[in-house]
Amino acid sequence: MKPIVCLPVIDRRAVLSSLVALPLLSASLRSIPAAAQAQSDPLPSWNDGATKSSILDFVERVTTRGGPLFVSPDQRIATFDNDGTLWVEQPMYVQLAFALDRVKAMAPMHPEWKDKQPFAAVLDGDLKALAASGEKGLVELVAVTHAGMTTAEFEKIVTDWLSTARDQRFKRPYTELVYQPMLELLAYLRANGFKTFIASGGGIEFMRPWTERIYGVPPEQVIGSSIKTRFEIKDGAPTLFRLPDINFINDKTGKPIGINEHIGRRPIAAFGNSDGDLEMLQWTTLGASGARFGLIVHHTDAEREYAYDRQSHFGRLDVALDAAAVNRWTVVDMKKDWKRIFAFD
Amino acid sequence: MKPIVCLPVIDRRAVLSSLVALPLLSASLRSIPAAAQAQSDPLPSWNDGATKSSILDFVERVTTRGGPLFVSPDQRIATFDNDGTLWVEQPMYVQLAFALDRVKAMAPMHPEWKDKQPFAAVLDGDLKALAASGEKGLVELVAVTHAGMTTAEFEKIVTDWLSTARDQRFKRPYTELVYQPMLELLAYLRANGFKTFIASGGGIEFMRPWTERIYGVPPEQVIGSSIKTRFEIKDGAPTLFRLPDINFINDKTGKPIGINEHIGRRPIAAFGNSDGDLEMLQWTTLGASGARFGLIVHHTDAEREYAYDRQSHFGRLDVALDAAAVNRWTVVDMKKDWKRIFAFD
Repeated sequence: MKPIVCLPVIDRRAVLSSLVALPLLSASLRSIPAAAQAQSDPLPSWNDGATKSSILDFVERVTTRGGPLFVSPDQRIATFDNDGTLWVEQPMYVQLAFALDRVKAMAPMHPEWKDKQPFAAVLDGDLKALAASGEKGLVELVAVTHAGMTTAEFEKIVTDWLSTARDQRFKRPYTELVYQPMLELLAYLRANGFKTFIASGGGIEFMRPWTERIYGVPPEQVIGSSIKTRFEIKDGAPTLFRLPDINFINDKTGKPIGINEHIGRRPIAAFGNSDGDLEMLQWTTLGASGARFGLIVHHTDAEREYAYDRQSHFGRLDVALDAAAVNRWTVVDMKKDWKRIFAFD
Repeated sequence: MKPIVCLPVIDRRAVLSSLVALPLLSASLRSIPAAAQAQSDPLPSWNDGATKSSILDFVERVTTRGGPLFVSPDQRIATFDNDGTLWVEQPMYVQLAFALDRVKAMAPMHPEWKDKQPFAAVLDGDLKALAASGEKGLVELVAVTHAGMTTAEFEKIVTDWLSTARDQRFKRPYTELVYQPMLELLAYLRANGFKTFIASGGGIEFMRPWTERIYGVPPEQVIGSSIKTRFEIKDGAPTLFRLPDINFINDKTGKPIGINEHIGRRPIAAFGNSDGDLEMLQWTTLGASGARFGLIVHHTDAEREYAYDRQSHFGRLDVALDAAAVNRWTVVDMKKDWKRIFAFD
């Protein structure tokens, strides 16, 4: 199940590939002292300061052989939230934009939607009425737009949509609205023997078609929310048919549960940005021996991206921000800590 | 979550490690013609013949750069059933032996079990009465022996049990009753760039404590049946508490569903031994372009191991055996194809 289309993101791919390849090569084929390696900055889009240092210090500690906090490579598991941590989640989750576009695309086949909520709200662009339809409305939206086809068909729908859809503010494909500093961080961790996973509240099958190309994270290292599927053989070919029933919500207390189900061991580093990531950060950092690292991306840059926290509808950061202070998690001040936000900046 | 005790399996580990390390080194650091590499047999416990050739041919085809059936390394996914495919499943599943032993160990705390089924049946060693308690009885057994503790506590219970429990026929730890030819096959596939996964009907948390040490398969590449868990913070430490509710049964049609949930792409090779593996083999081999490989271990050796198929209570092989002929899956005749069964043979 490889992505079928190629999006115009060659620049970032090239940057990412070299970032990944160079440190790996130097580590495996040549023997370079750690000090020499450090001279080329592995996180060039991060401004110098306490935030960047906390990351570099942690990685140095767990990779220093013979050091008191050394962690064997098989235990170097890092989990990343997606929405708001790796890519933009404002003015709404990308997956919600996808669902709304799907309703519009499917509307000609469903004339009855003109008078039926939550579909009428979507077709009228009336987000207030959509919100009024509540969770029931959203579940109906997901059922119609995310179920009723095979997994292979859904993958093609997602891939096709991402190749044409554009974010309204930045006028770019959503897969370009990924944070350059986080791409560098993913590559830096992998170059230091980490296995990087995504643990998102978003749909697992919505992410998998593109996470390997964009983040370097293969499908088997993506954890997310899911709906149920049914196995059936159709014209001699086995398929998984997507059903309109929720299987698992990988959010809040669901994150450690999903991480345990998929990975089977506790991460030693976790990266999030909202209250939905609180339990993942707790599961990763609390009550454990050895070095652990928790990080929260705080969106503070309305000019280059968005500024939001305790009052936001999407990606609310309230309880987890207070918990960060108590538990000494690193809080990224986006405006101050990031030299640039996107590769195109 | 690393295994805590070390079982006396040093011989096999040493064999396995060298098998894994040598071909990898030769592939990455030196350039050796394929013919020269083939001279050292990667599957020494397999007798020469059609079965062994089918494996070697498949691997050569998908790894030959420029060949018509070449598969890029990221797509080289192989899934293995566990019970009866990688280790012994007679006279009963090892996990069932574990559950029965747990009931006996816990009985002093539960005097009421003496008169209560299915517990009385277990304590009296009356397997007929146990069978009569049906699925309801088995679910009760699982609830009592597999739930009611944290995931960390359960891991320790499993590890402790495996370090002392002995199979009645072979008088050995269960983790020594793994098939030497299959260990070689796992290592051979990995040496050729495959990512090897376990996809078992057995409990995911029952396997993870030891699969890395015994099979070289890390916890994040183990797929199995599971019960639900609840996240809670206890005395400042986050835990996952195991609940007496089935979450997912990774058997029959559940196997492709579990494989899709965990891996997110179709395997190109699958290995099983019973009707429970039918849908995994279909999902892997049917209706797909390119080289695909399906293999069924047929237990035909009552002398060295067991002989069973269409009538067996555990690991019944009936429909899948017929399907193997139709779909050209390789069927291993254990007696004929395997030079030895166990490392201690």
